[in-house]
Amino acid sequence: MSNPCCRGVDIHTHVVPENFPAYRGRGNAVPWPSMSPAQHCHRHVMISGKVFRTVPNQCWDGAARIVDMDLMGIERQVLSPMPELLSYWLDAEDGAALARHLNVQIAGMVQRHPERFSGLGAVPLQDMTRCLRELEFVVSELGLAGVEIGTNVNGKPIGSPEFEPFFAAAAELGAAVFVHPLRPTGMDRLVGPASLEQILAFPCETGLAATSLLTGGILARHPSLRIALSHGGGAFPALAARLDHAWQVFPALQESMPEAPLATSRRLYFDSLVYNPVLLRQQIALFGASQTLIGTDYPFVILDKAPVPHIRELDLGAELERMLLRDNALRWLGLPASR
Amino acid sequence: MSNPCCRGVDIHTHVVPENFPAYRGRGNAVPWPSMSPAQHCHRHVMISGKVFRTVPNQCWDGAARIVDMDLMGIERQVLSPMPELLSYWLDAEDGAALARHLNVQIAGMVQRHPERFSGLGAVPLQDMTRCLRELEFVVSELGLAGVEIGTNVNGKPIGSPEFEPFFAAAAELGAAVFVHPLRPTGMDRLVGPASLEQILAFPCETGLAATSLLTGGILARHPSLRIALSHGGGAFPALAARLDHAWQVFPALQESMPEAPLATSRRLYFDSLVYNPVLLRQQIALFGASQTLIGTDYPFVILDKAPVPHIRELDLGAELERMLLRDNALRWLGLPASR
Repeated sequence: MSNPCCRGVDIHTHVVPENFPAYRGRGNAVPWPSMSPAQHCHRHVMISGKVFRTVPNQCWDGAARIVDMDLMGIERQVLSPMPELLSYWLDAEDGAALARHLNVQIAGMVQRHPERFSGLGAVPLQDMTRCLRELEFVVSELGLAGVEIGTNVNGKPIGSPEFEPFFAAAAELGAAVFVHPLRPTGMDRLVGPASLEQILAFPCETGLAATSLLTGGILARHPSLRIALSHGGGAFPALAARLDHAWQVFPALQESMPEAPLATSRRLYFDSLVYNPVLLRQQIALFGASQTLIGTDYPFVILDKAPVPHIRELDLGAELERMLLRDNALRWLGLPASR
Repeated sequence: MSNPCCRGVDIHTHVVPENFPAYRGRGNAVPWPSMSPAQHCHRHVMISGKVFRTVPNQCWDGAARIVDMDLMGIERQVLSPMPELLSYWLDAEDGAALARHLNVQIAGMVQRHPERFSGLGAVPLQDMTRCLRELEFVVSELGLAGVEIGTNVNGKPIGSPEFEPFFAAAAELGAAVFVHPLRPTGMDRLVGPASLEQILAFPCETGLAATSLLTGGILARHPSLRIALSHGGGAFPALAARLDHAWQVFPALQESMPEAPLATSRRLYFDSLVYNPVLLRQQIALFGASQTLIGTDYPFVILDKAPVPHIRELDLGAELERMLLRDNALRWLGLPASR
């Protein structure tokens, strides 16, 4: 066995602030989050008087995360908000205020351990003026690597024309963009417990959001965008191959997509959180070894606890291993590989 | 190059009757199909006064299909209704009448060339009594191999408890079941022309329908069912792997699924209509070489014109090639391999 290189860079990890400021807006019955005590080393995320989720202290405690990272062989985590906190359903002012709080918290975690953490902020996509303002703040003032966005904004897929200014600005600023499912479509097709929303609806939602970036022309107009998809893109591999064939037989599709969809898809990045080596090999074969990066969903229950072994066991050789473990992620973040 | 064996068995091909009987039911403004003349060798499928689709004569003309089959290296086609014709939104009597017409037409095409065609009928799943009656008729009277069903019945995914009697009867009768997307979920996530319904929403819909068969306990309760999924199951490979991991960490899922989801999934069959060799290899690796069969979507525009070369170019050796080209399909149909 060759000398194993380097530790990994994990682009799919979430944070929750230990506290939120009290609601100061003008609305009534607004689903503004708050934190309350729970069992040892946990807190409840409270939304609208109910426990949304009970989360461990690793959600806000960088030192606790680093203990786990050292056990997992992870050199750097990219911190993004627990997706429900993106809260696009808040009004413009409330959404901007919540995003600002999240972003300052994340920046604080990064600043305390800059050699171990990068950060992705939140932007209030429900109001483009405020969104662009916060994006500028996140990248230029806080120095975060970019932002996490949901797959839809109040039901509108992110490839919709109204989100063009956001993507144009992200490209201009060189911000990394991480796409994570949120309030997914397809809920009417689930038969079983509530957890199926995350398990089954999320990957379909991600696949459709990603294809909307293609069919809506976002990726064609902004080839420099660095967009990573969670969960290996979910349904995206199957959709992209089908879309690529259809592009050849339905001329109407070529209006918004001047380039073949699979070719364009190879500018996207895909995290490794697919829970199966066959799927992991497939996304590498389909989109290229330069486009897969580690993702775990740390610190939530469904996480992949062994992301580095899952790359190594593919037995792809030292050079590809290094790319998959760290270099692709650093490129996506806009950091030098030698870091 | 080894001596190439045998021609293929294509399980995903559609038919449309040359004519439908005039509507004789009791409703008003019922979306009952009719056929009208179109350009040379085509007819319009008319529904509610509009052209639903313009279809070629191969849709009803067996001899014309056989000419194409000989060119494609296809020994046997499995004929199923163009899915819109399943028409679960018709009332019980109208649905049963339409299904009966489709089934008699399909049986006629099979009877004229029994060495080249097998048939799958339609059953009115919107009314279980009539559905079971028609299923019995299709299998026992008409001698068809089984039925094609949509992924949902008026929005209810097929793994819902109300469809249990259908699956129990299909298992009892030894009927093959082919699952095809219809009126898919996710339409609100599409950005682009109307064709995206088929291209992108269909595969997500199929994946969710198939997982509903798992999470709803249908596959666990009826291990002898022979169910094939169209388009390689669409999103199903990604969903199944994620569900399999989640099954290990969320105990609630084990109530309806006593067996690990990936293991159960290997009792499903997957057609080859994935438009990419990487995806085709993946489904073979994930579900086993015994579970993939040829599907083309003949005679529609999006069809795979070279299904046999797409299997051969995988270069899997003579034994696996024979299984993928014909034997798996014959097993799914309930026909002897020596046929």
